[in-house]
Amino acid sequence: MSKTRFQITISVDGYMAGPNQDEENPLGVGGEDLHRWMFALANWRQSTGYTGGVDNASSPVMDEMFANTGAVVMGRNMFSGFRGPWSNDPDWRGWWGEDPPYHMPVFVLTHYAREPLVMEGGTTFYFVTEGVDAAMARAREVAAGKDVLVGGGANTIQQALAGSYVDEFLLSVSPLLLGAGERPFDNVSGLRVEQTQVIDAPGVTHVRYRVVRD
Amino acid sequence: MSKTRFQITISVDGYMAGPNQDEENPLGVGGEDLHRWMFALANWRQSTGYTGGVDNASSPVMDEMFANTGAVVMGRNMFSGFRGPWSNDPDWRGWWGEDPPYHMPVFVLTHYAREPLVMEGGTTFYFVTEGVDAAMARAREVAAGKDVLVGGGANTIQQALAGSYVDEFLLSVSPLLLGAGERPFDNVSGLRVEQTQVIDAPGVTHVRYRVVRD
Repeated sequence: MSKTRFQITISVDGYMAGPNQDEENPLGVGGEDLHRWMFALANWRQSTGYTGGVDNASSPVMDEMFANTGAVVMGRNMFSGFRGPWSNDPDWRGWWGEDPPYHMPVFVLTHYAREPLVMEGGTTFYFVTEGVDAAMARAREVAAGKDVLVGGGANTIQQALAGSYVDEFLLSVSPLLLGAGERPFDNVSGLRVEQTQVIDAPGVTHVRYRVVRD
Repeated sequence: MSKTRFQITISVDGYMAGPNQDEENPLGVGGEDLHRWMFALANWRQSTGYTGGVDNASSPVMDEMFANTGAVVMGRNMFSGFRGPWSNDPDWRGWWGEDPPYHMPVFVLTHYAREPLVMEGGTTFYFVTEGVDAAMARAREVAAGKDVLVGGGANTIQQALAGSYVDEFLLSVSPLLLGAGERPFDNVSGLRVEQTQVIDAPGVTHVRYRVVRD
């Protein structure tokens, strides 16, 4: 059955991004360190053009990110570090390089309309100005029975949770504290979950939760 | 080697107690649900005068709470739900009943001096008005080479972390969200940790961290 899900890395103190996000620190100060477990993996390195890396208990977690996934929904800040109208840098085509790792439609929540951006390798960014409900509806339709991945950031995760869109999520808890930043579960109430899987991996703990509905 | 450590249960959104703590809800609204994994255990039930219960992957976590532990440091609120001077209820001898589960010296941080309270079974509560440094020093001394357990609550954990007293901690993450309450790592900065153990248990994930010092 198709699901809407997210998988994110958080710190021991619960932040998925550090403070003071900007173009230099897209994940906020210290935020990139959250993903060290991922940067070490052979399958991550291969998907992003690097060589080397290791296989370990985290490798399947990386593999499943886009397995059986038909569409992605993300916040503007995950596409582009700067805010405001697009005209302040018309050449900027996002963080992800010319061949983003998605290879599927990606719906970007933004206040600023923009024509779809067709990248290499099957990724197309669609810019949705009508809010999370519209983005989720379009993503579900285009996913055609596959899963919808809510990519982030924190604000988009919060909106997807608050809108009861999320069926399942996987939290990867990295062994560091950020002290400040953005939390995925702020502004969310009434969410009930069930722990369905724990993965003990080098330098990270992965826990999968299913959202319980009446 | 003797350590100073804590082991606490937190929600998926990082709270170790819910909001609005009072005598009726000593762990705040919803906070008691955090500990469901523990209430189900045979060894916990036995230690608190109940019968029945199960043995599972969480049982050793419960056993180690007081194993090789020589003294406990806790906040006033973990001893007594009300605040302020003791005189407002001189008969109140704490949450823990006549035979508290500690069976060792317990140092209670408080602003209000009080004579030590000798309970059955070897637990003596000492009331420390000189702050966390004094409480830690007295606990270490009386522990005589055994571990010091920082019992909680959140404010006392924060003070112990901020004072660089903690060598190790175990987080038990319960599959629920509280939405508000008290977090153990607020007001703590510069803490570096290493993941040393993950325990996949029914309805809870236990992760052990070692504090890394230069």
